[in-house]
Amino acid sequence: MYIENVKKEMKLPEKVRIFDTTLRDGEQTPGVAITPDEKIRIAKRLDRLGVDVIEVGFPAASLGERKAAQEIKSLGLNAQVCGLARVLQEDLDAAIDSDVDYIHTFIGTSPLHREYKLHMSREEILIKSVDAVEYIKDHGIIAEFSAEDATRTEFEYLKEIYSAVEDAGVDVINVPDTVGVMVPAAMRKLIEDLKNAVNIPISVHCHDDFGLAVANSLVAVEAGAQQVHATINGLGERAGNTSLEEVVMALMVNYGVKTNINTELLVGTSGLVSRITGVKMPPNKAIVGDNAFAHEAGIHVHGVLQKAETYEPLKPEMVGHSRRIVMGKHTGARAIRSKLDDYGIEMDEDQFCSLYDQVKKLGDKGKTVTDADLHALAETVIGKPKEEKVKLEGFTVMTGDNVLPTATVKLNIEGKIKTAAKTGVGPVDAAINAIQSLVMKIAEIELREYHIDAITGGTNALAEVFVIVADKEGNSATGRSTVEDVVMASVEAVLDAINKILMER
Amino acid sequence: MYIENVKKEMKLPEKVRIFDTTLRDGEQTPGVAITPDEKIRIAKRLDRLGVDVIEVGFPAASLGERKAAQEIKSLGLNAQVCGLARVLQEDLDAAIDSDVDYIHTFIGTSPLHREYKLHMSREEILIKSVDAVEYIKDHGIIAEFSAEDATRTEFEYLKEIYSAVEDAGVDVINVPDTVGVMVPAAMRKLIEDLKNAVNIPISVHCHDDFGLAVANSLVAVEAGAQQVHATINGLGERAGNTSLEEVVMALMVNYGVKTNINTELLVGTSGLVSRITGVKMPPNKAIVGDNAFAHEAGIHVHGVLQKAETYEPLKPEMVGHSRRIVMGKHTGARAIRSKLDDYGIEMDEDQFCSLYDQVKKLGDKGKTVTDADLHALAETVIGKPKEEKVKLEGFTVMTGDNVLPTATVKLNIEGKIKTAAKTGVGPVDAAINAIQSLVMKIAEIELREYHIDAITGGTNALAEVFVIVADKEGNSATGRSTVEDVVMASVEAVLDAINKILMER
Repeated sequence: MYIENVKKEMKLPEKVRIFDTTLRDGEQTPGVAITPDEKIRIAKRLDRLGVDVIEVGFPAASLGERKAAQEIKSLGLNAQVCGLARVLQEDLDAAIDSDVDYIHTFIGTSPLHREYKLHMSREEILIKSVDAVEYIKDHGIIAEFSAEDATRTEFEYLKEIYSAVEDAGVDVINVPDTVGVMVPAAMRKLIEDLKNAVNIPISVHCHDDFGLAVANSLVAVEAGAQQVHATINGLGERAGNTSLEEVVMALMVNYGVKTNINTELLVGTSGLVSRITGVKMPPNKAIVGDNAFAHEAGIHVHGVLQKAETYEPLKPEMVGHSRRIVMGKHTGARAIRSKLDDYGIEMDEDQFCSLYDQVKKLGDKGKTVTDADLHALAETVIGKPKEEKVKLEGFTVMTGDNVLPTATVKLNIEGKIKTAAKTGVGPVDAAINAIQSLVMKIAEIELREYHIDAITGGTNALAEVFVIVADKEGNSATGRSTVEDVVMASVEAVLDAINKILMER
Repeated sequence: MYIENVKKEMKLPEKVRIFDTTLRDGEQTPGVAITPDEKIRIAKRLDRLGVDVIEVGFPAASLGERKAAQEIKSLGLNAQVCGLARVLQEDLDAAIDSDVDYIHTFIGTSPLHREYKLHMSREEILIKSVDAVEYIKDHGIIAEFSAEDATRTEFEYLKEIYSAVEDAGVDVINVPDTVGVMVPAAMRKLIEDLKNAVNIPISVHCHDDFGLAVANSLVAVEAGAQQVHATINGLGERAGNTSLEEVVMALMVNYGVKTNINTELLVGTSGLVSRITGVKMPPNKAIVGDNAFAHEAGIHVHGVLQKAETYEPLKPEMVGHSRRIVMGKHTGARAIRSKLDDYGIEMDEDQFCSLYDQVKKLGDKGKTVTDADLHALAETVIGKPKEEKVKLEGFTVMTGDNVLPTATVKLNIEGKIKTAAKTGVGPVDAAINAIQSLVMKIAEIELREYHIDAITGGTNALAEVFVIVADKEGNSATGRSTVEDVVMASVEAVLDAINKILMER
């Protein structure tokens, strides 16, 4: 509501173009390299997402980059396909040879870049920039020009170079905050001043070194910028670039400014990029993080159950997410009651207090209580005896460089002792195979998910194993165990899950 | 530089107080629960870091919360110890009983909270708030009042309630953007207007649902706010709160506003909180992420090697970080040459081209090349045969439920066959203990870091083990291995690292 008081002072465009640079600046994330095939997968997804421009790479860097650009261009996407190029002949030619629709050309303009990196004068830089733009336009290609490190460049010079490339026919000028040093008020002023100096669309490219990339992009739009450079998950050099999902949702929800993005594809796109690049987003990442619409504290859960808007700024479905109520230390009684209603489990006050107490105690130990856990706890409380149909009676495993990993398991299954020995690709696999072969007789279970939580700090640290096991009827349960021995932890977690499944039958 | 043009319009205080809520709002991160002992460890660290207030929890929630508060208070820290309380008698009493210095009391004030959560009128809420503040002040405790969801509350009512608590003697009023819906321009206006309405310090508490928590906190300071609520790593409900490390560094570097934070402890504090909560920060997290000062692309590395400021907004040492040049697909020849110079390795052009080619190929496969890897590659290129001083000749490990995990290792160490058997807490620990005992005779090595990358998809998936091994002289090397058997992968990774260390001697 407060935004309405200040909106009249803004020069908001109706719509903002999204220039996606996940495949270029995002790929420059140290430690990340995307193969040409993966670039194509991401490009197709970005096109479905609705970005206006896809910067596919830096064609001059390698043959692989040029080939990827050509292949993406040949897909016939709706988005414009853009290649990056320094203002150098060979870079421009490499981009032109890649058959792109759009060339993003750049050169450093700040004193630091002029003196220490380029060893060039202002005049030389200006001439090369103009030449580059003319060369691109001579080839009938869309041209965007970036004065690299613009936000540390003298304004008079910045105006001069942007005006010169405007005269040379550039289509868009881009203002990169290359090292992320801008603050919102300064960015607004800079874009306002540039807006008065040129008559072509202004774009911004922000870096997140102080966590301000999204804010700086938004204030640039407030001052009249019509295009924003962004990357999925905010990938990019150092602390990364403007996060596409955040800037798009803020524009739409808070400013009422449109983009061409199909927002319900945001979470899925974030997941795809995360899997391909190996860069995982933390749960507290805005819009797409696991916790973006998760609630645990008693007060918040109470509010959300009454009316989601009390603690949610937008509907999770809008971005392809879903609401999650997490139970643990902070969970209030109301949230648990609501879960029990979902399961159709009825219990009296005494039983409920006992259940509530158990959830709290698990929470105090630092554990989260999943839905399956709550279900199991509830069944125990309402008198259904917690019977472990399958108990571990004995277990040995052996592996080595010339030993086929072998596990021997002795289980008590509903009172009968059974043993099995199985091999596997490793000791954990062998152990799980042996358990599966024994349990098969009463339940055809399969392991849906197996996850070892990273162990840091030494080989004697705790290994936390988390599994999801399912049977043919579609029942599934989670199991977990935390002990120092990774093999034992795996066995315990699987048995934990199997017992929960058997309980439900 | 552009900030100077707009700074004169700001009402920047000389110094901003940092109210840390890692242990309260941060702990409400869904899935996170911190035990009382862990709270104490974090509180001590926050005190060393220099935060002004530590909000230690919500004493009314549980006995554990009250005990943790009392224990932290008894440490005699420099920071003020604060407890959260609703404006209810029982909450306030729980906080008072916890012996805190400071009570942060709150009640929802927005129409949504009044109607759907509290079912209370404006007047009732105002009276309860005033009563709560008076009660706190009657007990001689510092009082901070939050109008929850302030940023969706009618301004006239907000002014009325803040003025009423001011009259009741509150020390600080806090403005929570509970669901993170503010944009910078609106936040600036709101704080300016409140600044005209009250005469006590104003604090802000922002959430990051649209990635704007840091920006909104900063503009609040521009408008005269004197205190910022923040959490380490931006933990908190949903997308989390203002990230302490980001807001502190932006205030200091970009605005020239001081805080009491010892910034060189930021990276270490982030790591501690990450380990205790289990919430890992992504590499592209500003200030504290692994990549915050890492450079890979050829152009950036070239610039940074000439003069770090070209691509770095602040010195990594300022925040306890260090610069990292990552080699991979984008690495230019200059960066590799510079690394070789660091090692004192000389090679001719042919050798260099062969090395460069190998680094690029590893990069194209999506692999990062660490310093130790480059060193090993370089030694191979200049003809130094890749000698593995330590070779695995035989290895067996056994574990089980009644078996003490035991490993037997046969190594060829510089031509001599040696064997050892050792036990451990698990099979990996036993294996590493056996290797260590054998290698000890030629190098006293220790395992600095051990990390299993999460295995998903099944027990027969690949396990990636990464280790850092160091010797007494301070040489360290990384080792990694990816095979299906987690125990074998660990053994191979450790031997890989040991051989790299021995090569350097």
